[in-house]
Amino acid sequence: ASDLHHSCQWGSGIRWGDGPTDTGMRRLALSEDDKSVRDWFIQTMKDLKCNVTVDEMGNIFAVRPGRRADVPATFIGSHLDTQPTGGRYDGILGVLAGIEVIKTMNDMGLETEGGVGVVDWTNEEGARFPISMVSSGVWAECIPLAHAHDLKEVPTVASLPTAASAPETMKSALQKIGYLGDIPCSYKSTPMAAHFEIHIEQGPYLVSANQRVGVVTAVQAYRWFRLNIIGRDTHTGTTAFEHRADALYAFAQMMVRAREVAASKGCLASVGIVEAKPGSVNTVPGKVSFSLDIRGPETEQVAEVEKELRTDFDAIAAAEGAGIGKPCRVEWTLDFDSPAVKFHEDCVDCVEQSAQAVVADASVADTKSLVRTIMSGAGHDSVFTSKRVPTSMIFIPCMDGLSHHPEEFSTADDCATGASVILQAVVRYDRK
Amino acid sequence: ASDLHHSCQWGSGIRWGDGPTDTGMRRLALSEDDKSVRDWFIQTMKDLKCNVTVDEMGNIFAVRPGRRADVPATFIGSHLDTQPTGGRYDGILGVLAGIEVIKTMNDMGLETEGGVGVVDWTNEEGARFPISMVSSGVWAECIPLAHAHDLKEVPTVASLPTAASAPETMKSALQKIGYLGDIPCSYKSTPMAAHFEIHIEQGPYLVSANQRVGVVTAVQAYRWFRLNIIGRDTHTGTTAFEHRADALYAFAQMMVRAREVAASKGCLASVGIVEAKPGSVNTVPGKVSFSLDIRGPETEQVAEVEKELRTDFDAIAAAEGAGIGKPCRVEWTLDFDSPAVKFHEDCVDCVEQSAQAVVADASVADTKSLVRTIMSGAGHDSVFTSKRVPTSMIFIPCMDGLSHHPEEFSTADDCATGASVILQAVVRYDRK
Ligand SMILES: NC(=O)NCCC(=O)O
Ligand SMILES: NC(=O)NCCC(=O)O
Repeated sequence: ASDLHHSCQWGSGIRWGDGPTDTGMRRLALSEDDKSVRDWFIQTMKDLKCNVTVDEMGNIFAVRPGRRADVPATFIGSHLDTQPTGGRYDGILGVLAGIEVIKTMNDMGLETEGGVGVVDWTNEEGARFPISMVSSGVWAECIPLAHAHDLKEVPTVASLPTAASAPETMKSALQKIGYLGDIPCSYKSTPMAAHFEIHIEQGPYLVSANQRVGVVTAVQAYRWFRLNIIGRDTHTGTTAFEHRADALYAFAQMMVRAREVAASKGCLASVGIVEAKPGSVNTVPGKVSFSLDIRGPETEQVAEVEKELRTDFDAIAAAEGAGIGKPCRVEWTLDFDSPAVKFHEDCVDCVEQSAQAVVADASVADTKSLVRTIMSGAGHDSVFTSKRVPTSMIFIPCMDGLSHHPEEFSTADDCATGASVILQAVVRYDRK
Repeated sequence: ASDLHHSCQWGSGIRWGDGPTDTGMRRLALSEDDKSVRDWFIQTMKDLKCNVTVDEMGNIFAVRPGRRADVPATFIGSHLDTQPTGGRYDGILGVLAGIEVIKTMNDMGLETEGGVGVVDWTNEEGARFPISMVSSGVWAECIPLAHAHDLKEVPTVASLPTAASAPETMKSALQKIGYLGDIPCSYKSTPMAAHFEIHIEQGPYLVSANQRVGVVTAVQAYRWFRLNIIGRDTHTGTTAFEHRADALYAFAQMMVRAREVAASKGCLASVGIVEAKPGSVNTVPGKVSFSLDIRGPETEQVAEVEKELRTDFDAIAAAEGAGIGKPCRVEWTLDFDSPAVKFHEDCVDCVEQSAQAVVADASVADTKSLVRTIMSGAGHDSVFTSKRVPTSMIFIPCMDGLSHHPEEFSTADDCATGASVILQAVVRYDRK
């Protein structure tokens, strides 16, 4: 836990309290702060006698060798990048727990058949480069390397003045901080026996039920879109409502409708980014672009919400500006598609058994009930590793179910419990 | 007309056609382009034997002397700044018609009792510095000089990379381009006998009725606000709708409501600027700020819309986040208040008579019907001059009633008609 806060010195974000660790994090992928924490991670792993490699997406793999050199290592992975107004646990906990596991194994002199690795995946958040889990996606050969390298940073969180310089691409950002490795980014070049990931739940179920560990069996589906609405710039003071093709008014109606439709189907729909042009008090915006994030337990549900919204948004656009025969138009671009995932039975079993073992000495009557199976609302690098190798995840409770927020918090106890579970899960898996 | 397009070389905006004049304008107040057109304006007026002065707000006054030095000049005024995606007529026409009038007077050797002046008012649009007509407002002593000097540029249209440097203030921008004059900005230091302004209508009434001239008798009321909504950043994938305090969702509902309420009272309500923070696809925005422009024929109507929206916005904010006991909050700041204006009878008469005289030889049966009285939906510098000196305005038709748009257009004929009307109006007023 002290390592966790130590690593948070690079990229400290919004301060919300007086204590030394009472700040959030703003460590955008491939920023200078990300470089610093990466340098620290590599040095730490080398000090722990791990072999470290970096691939073309800047993913960092650190392996503690096992008895046999001919089998791939079992990995613990997550990410060190954060949201622009993120906290100290999302992703960071997963990598730091990995370090903790290696330390403990060294201290105990524990030998394993295969090696045990820790991986830091690049740009998991998708906050700076707008595909989440993009680098585990390339590793799984689900996303083409060139597509990932060409991704442009999102202007609203760009680290550089946007007006002055062209937006950074992932490749140029990797080069800039010296993390464009030369190992191909692929499960073929860096094979794994399995992938385990520990993460804060980011939702309210564990914390509100006073449960200690979530055994993650699945991840919900999601799709990310970028939409443009094209209307007509005009004067706010002299243009009657019937004479407007107000792209921002169309947006407002669309956002209201999106929640309505998603809710009716047990799904979520959210807008995180919106930009209205030209951006002047007395000009009706003729152009709006915005992000749309649709999620649901099953891939088909997300597709249904999308389908209904495509129809509804067209209708909203068509009505705004109809009076002047110049209706708004709406254009959709799919940025990212992550179908629903079910994790591997073997890995889920290892996590379940380890969790039960770790909570067994808690001072409650029914320790079994401290552990539950759970579906992840958020995407994680484990989504992509699961396409190629057995994978599962461990959730621990977090305050208020809050994340992507500076005050995101899990107790040191819960973090330690999670680290013990993942250590056991890895050892169990190695012995299978 | 050729001078008009000549002057548009400084600050050319969006191209919409192939012709040499088929671009809009982007000449933000006190930008380098604004400096260039100011330099040209001053040189042109000096060549026309006018005396030129610049005041502390960068207002430029050029006076063609009359027979008597002891009476103030009658002024023709408007502005040379534009919207970020503006056109070639809004404001520009008014100053260029002034130049045309002086040229014609010189050519005709016409003598007047008092002088005749042309004034370029600074930052009329309010697009870069968010108070429209701010410099005529200071001249009228309705807006304190210090308040105007301290105005910060709007980030969405800022000329400089916003991340890198502090936003420019009006005073620093004036200094930067060398237009911080030393004459006090006041009607006392630069008195006027009267102020006439010619402008494109910016609305559809003249053009759709095939009328040639609008005699402007009044200007509708408006108020500009900047609003902040404070909610809570959280994860888009793991946070149920009931657990959100989504500031952007609250905004969307407010914008929809604003149109509803304004329409029900015969008013307008418009949002031109919106910013959502932190601006990441998978974070629910915890902070939104936006502009709100409310207009109506009478000051009281605008106040009523504001009152109703204050109540409704509070209710919308209170509902969003109620589920977690952390409802959104909304804060209002009034940036600018422009009560309804009635123009001076003497000036209105001069314009009416001049307009009738100019259209009298049109080849239609009822030339009288080519002229109508009209209320202005937009604010103009004449709003503030009217507080201190007799004022009125002349409107000419513009294509589709469109303005604050690159394709804004009035025919050369209509521009010439307007210039003739304002020349006659000034001479008539001088002889009164
Ligand atoms: N865990 C997490 O926040 N992942 C980012 C991808 C997502 O938005 O689900
Ligand atoms: N004429 C004009 O566009 N004036 C700017 C102030 C306003 O928005 O009415």
